[in-house]
Amino acid sequence: MQTDLRGRSLISDMDFSKEEVETVIDVALKLKRDRALGIGHPLLRDKVLAMLFFFSSTRTRSSFEAGMAQLGGHAAFIDHTTTQISHGDTAKEIGEIFGRYYDGIAIRQVDWGVGNAYQNAVREATRVPVLNMQCDVYHPFQILADLMTIIEKLGDPRGKTIDVSWAYASSYQKPISIPQSLILQMTRFGMNVRLTRPPEYKLMPDIVQQARDNARQFGGSFEVMDDFDAGFKDADVIYAKSWGALLTTDDDAESAKIGNQYKDWITDERRMAMAKDSAIYMHCLPADRNIEVTDAVLDGPQSVVYDEAENRLHAQKAVMALTMR
Amino acid sequence: MQTDLRGRSLISDMDFSKEEVETVIDVALKLKRDRALGIGHPLLRDKVLAMLFFFSSTRTRSSFEAGMAQLGGHAAFIDHTTTQISHGDTAKEIGEIFGRYYDGIAIRQVDWGVGNAYQNAVREATRVPVLNMQCDVYHPFQILADLMTIIEKLGDPRGKTIDVSWAYASSYQKPISIPQSLILQMTRFGMNVRLTRPPEYKLMPDIVQQARDNARQFGGSFEVMDDFDAGFKDADVIYAKSWGALLTTDDDAESAKIGNQYKDWITDERRMAMAKDSAIYMHCLPADRNIEVTDAVLDGPQSVVYDEAENRLHAQKAVMALTMR
Amino acid sequence: MQTDLRGRSLISDMDFSKEEVETVIDVALKLKRDRALGIGHPLLRDKVLAMLFFFSSTRTRSSFEAGMAQLGGHAAFIDHTTTQISHGDTAKEIGEIFGRYYDGIAIRQVDWGVGNAYQNAVREATRVPVLNMQCDVYHPFQILADLMTIIEKLGDPRGKTIDVSWAYASSYQKPISIPQSLILQMTRFGMNVRLTRPPEYKLMPDIVQQARDNARQFGGSFEVMDDFDAGFKDADVIYAKSWGALLTTDDDAESAKIGNQYKDWITDERRMAMAKDSAIYMHCLPADRNIEVTDAVLDGPQSVVYDEAENRLHAQKAVMALTMR
Repeated sequence: MQTDLRGRSLISDMDFSKEEVETVIDVALKLKRDRALGIGHPLLRDKVLAMLFFFSSTRTRSSFEAGMAQLGGHAAFIDHTTTQISHGDTAKEIGEIFGRYYDGIAIRQVDWGVGNAYQNAVREATRVPVLNMQCDVYHPFQILADLMTIIEKLGDPRGKTIDVSWAYASSYQKPISIPQSLILQMTRFGMNVRLTRPPEYKLMPDIVQQARDNARQFGGSFEVMDDFDAGFKDADVIYAKSWGALLTTDDDAESAKIGNQYKDWITDERRMAMAKDSAIYMHCLPADRNIEVTDAVLDGPQSVVYDEAENRLHAQKAVMALTMR
Repeated sequence: MQTDLRGRSLISDMDFSKEEVETVIDVALKLKRDRALGIGHPLLRDKVLAMLFFFSSTRTRSSFEAGMAQLGGHAAFIDHTTTQISHGDTAKEIGEIFGRYYDGIAIRQVDWGVGNAYQNAVREATRVPVLNMQCDVYHPFQILADLMTIIEKLGDPRGKTIDVSWAYASSYQKPISIPQSLILQMTRFGMNVRLTRPPEYKLMPDIVQQARDNARQFGGSFEVMDDFDAGFKDADVIYAKSWGALLTTDDDAESAKIGNQYKDWITDERRMAMAKDSAIYMHCLPADRNIEVTDAVLDGPQSVVYDEAENRLHAQKAVMALTMR
Repeated sequence: MQTDLRGRSLISDMDFSKEEVETVIDVALKLKRDRALGIGHPLLRDKVLAMLFFFSSTRTRSSFEAGMAQLGGHAAFIDHTTTQISHGDTAKEIGEIFGRYYDGIAIRQVDWGVGNAYQNAVREATRVPVLNMQCDVYHPFQILADLMTIIEKLGDPRGKTIDVSWAYASSYQKPISIPQSLILQMTRFGMNVRLTRPPEYKLMPDIVQQARDNARQFGGSFEVMDDFDAGFKDADVIYAKSWGALLTTDDDAESAKIGNQYKDWITDERRMAMAKDSAIYMHCLPADRNIEVTDAVLDGPQSVVYDEAENRLHAQKAVMALTMR
C-alpha cells in the first residue's frame, strides 16, 4: 500500500504507480462496503472540488458530485454554458485562482489536441490536485472503475485476456482516450491485452509503445489485431466500443466513409459465444444500442455495465479521499 | 403515525396512505418549528438527491435544494440544458445508474402523456425513492404543502369547503396536475371539495372517479360545478388557478379560442366577499397578476400564498427525511 | 470590534460602518489562517445561500460557492439561463419566498439603472441578508478583498496613496461599480485617494461627493485628476482598470469613439516606475491583457492580483459568517 498520494494529480493513467493504483482499488472497495452498510465516511468534510466541464456528461458529473457529497464535501458544477471557462480565463488564471478557492480541480476537456495540454497547463499553475475527468488522450477514472470491476468479477487480473476492441457507431467521432487508457493500465496488471481495430483506427504510437513496455515489465502481453471476430476468441473480458479515426483523417465525410466499411463490427450473441463462458461484457456507456452492441448482449447475463458504471463512484471517491485530504 | 416510509417513492398522491400523509404533516410541522428555533436537524447527513429538471422552476428547485442542505445532505441540480437527460440516457439507464450514485431521484417532467410514464419507468429500474417534483398527472408535494397550510390556518380540514377552481390565464396551457392532486388528496381529508371549471377544462375521468370514491370513503363530499361565482359561495378555501384544456383539444389556436370565452374567470374582491369571512386564498404561484387574480386579492389579507410557498420546504423535507434515511 | 452584524445586508459599501468593516477584515484574516492550518471552521453548518446570477462570473461564483461549503453550508447557483429569475418572478416574490427557503440571498445584477434598485427591492421584501455580488453602483465584496490585500501588503492604509484610475479596454462598457466602491471605502480608511480618468468617464456625482466627505471625516484626502501618468507618481497602490462612459452616453458607437481617444491609457513598466518602489499593482481580473495592462506588469513582481483574487474568498466568508449565522 502506498500512503503518499496527498496533493497528487491524476491526468495520465501512469501518474500513479501500479502499487498506488492498488491502494486506490483497496480504498474503493472499502468505501463501497461502507456505503452498503450505511457507515458514513466524511473523509473530505467541508472540502470543495471544482468540476470544469467543457463538455457535459451526466454520468461523470453525477459520480463526482455525489461522491464528494458522500465524503462530506462539495463539488461545484462549472459548465461551459454558464461560465467563462471556455473563453476569457486562461489555464494559468484558472489554475492560480481555483487553487486558492478549491481543494481540487477536476476537468473534462476532450478536444483533440487541446484537452490534455489544457489540463497539464492548469496543473502547472495550481497548488491543488488536478483530476482528469477525460481528455483527448486519457480517461483514467473510467479505467480505475473498469479494473475494479474486473477484479470483483474475475479475481486476480493476471493472465486474463481482455479484448479492447473498436466497434461501429453512427453518432460521432468519439475520443480515443478509453482504449488508450485501457491498454496502458491493463498491461500493468499482467493481463493479456488485445487491441483489435480496423487499420484506420490507430491509437497514438507512443501510447501503444508504452503499453508494450508495460506488458514486458509487468508480465502480461500485448498484441494488435485487425480481425473483430478473432478478438473475442477465448477472451475473459470483451470491451468493444467505438472511437474516431482521428489519427487517420480530420475530415468528417472521409471519417464517415471509413467507418461505413466496418458496420458489421457490432457485439452480438454469436460473437460473445466465442469468448469464454465466464466472459464479461464491458462498456463505459452510453452505448449506441443495436449499432455498437445488441440489446441482447448489453442487457444480457454477461453484461456488467451497470456495476461498471457504479464503480466510477467508488474509484473516484477513493482517489479524491487520498489526494485531496 | 406510520413509521415504514424508508425507500418509498411518491409519484401519485395515493402512493402514501392517509395515515402516512398525516405522518408527513406531523414531521413537517416539527421541522418547521426546529428551523424557527435554529435547532439543526441533519437527518440525511451526506446523503445525495438527484433533481432532474426537464423543465426548470425556481421555487421547486430552491425548496428541494435548500431542504436537502438543511437536512445535512446535498441535492444535485441536473438541468436538461446542461446534461443528456433529455436525450441519450433512457429511463432505465437513469434509474439503474442514478440509483447507485444517489440516495433519491426527484424528477420534474410535465410533458402531457409523457411525464408520469417516465417517472414510473425510472422507479421500475431503480433502487432508491423517486420523488415527483410535478408530472403531467400529479403534483403531490405542492398538495402536501397546501394541506399543511390549510391545517395551520383553519385547523382540522374535515367539513371545510375548498373551491378548486379553474381561472383564466393568457400565458400558456398549464398542466392539470395541481387540480387533479388537490381533488384526490383533499377528499381523503374529509373536505367538501368543489371542482369548478368551464366544461371544456376536464380532468382525467379516472382521477375524478377516484376523488368521488375518496369522498365517500373518508366522509367528505365532491361535486363538479361550472359556475365560477357559485364556487366561491361560503367556501373556506379558494384555490383558483388556470390549467389547459388538454383533454378537449391539442390545438393551440383552438385552445386559446376556448379560453377567451372565460376571460372573466378572475378572482377579485367581489368574489372573495362571497366566501366565508375567514376564507383563505391559495395559489401555487407564479400567478398571472390581474388576469388569474387581482393584486388586491393576491396581496390582500386573505392571501396565504407565501406561507403556502414556504410550506413546500417543510413538507418536502419531511418526505425526504422519511423516505431517504 | 462590532459584534452585531447578524441579519445585516451588504449592498452599498456604506451599509457597514468603518468599525464593522474592520471586524470583517479581522475575521477574514483569522479564517485565512485557519484554512492555511487545515483547521475547520463550520460556522454556517447546514445553512444555505441563494446565489442569483443575472450575469455569470467564474470568480465570483466560485469564491461564494467554495466559501459557503468551507463554512459547512451550501450555496445554490441560480443562473438566469436555467431559471425564471430574469422574468416571471418579481423582486418581491423572490425576496418573500427565498427569505423562507434560504438563509441569505446573494445577487449579481449589473444592468445600468436596474441592478441596485433590484437588490434593494429584494432586501425590502425579505427576512434574510442580501449580499451584493456586484450591481451597477457598488461592488462591496471586491473592495473588502482589496482593502484586506492592501493591509496585508502595506500595513496600515492611513496616509498611503492609491491611484484609482481608468484604463483603456476594447471589450465592452464595464460597470463603474468598482471605482465607485473603491473611492467610497478607501477614503474611510484614511488613504490619499486619486480618481484619475478622462473627463468623459464620470462617476455618479453623489458617490464622488460621499468620497469627498469620507476623506474629510476620516483624515484622508480625495482628488480628481485627468492625467494618466500623473496618477502613478509616488503612489503606493496602482488600481487601473477600464469602465464605461455610462454617464456621458448610452450609444455604443459614440462610446467606442470616446474610448479610442485614450488607447494609451495602459499600465506598463515605464509608468509603474513612476510609482513608489514598494508600490503594488492591483486589478480585480479578468484584465484585457496588453490593452489595459502589459503582461510584464500583470505577471510582474509588483502585481498582487492573485492574492487579491484569493482574498475574495476570505472576505466573503467573513461577511457570510457574521451576517448569516
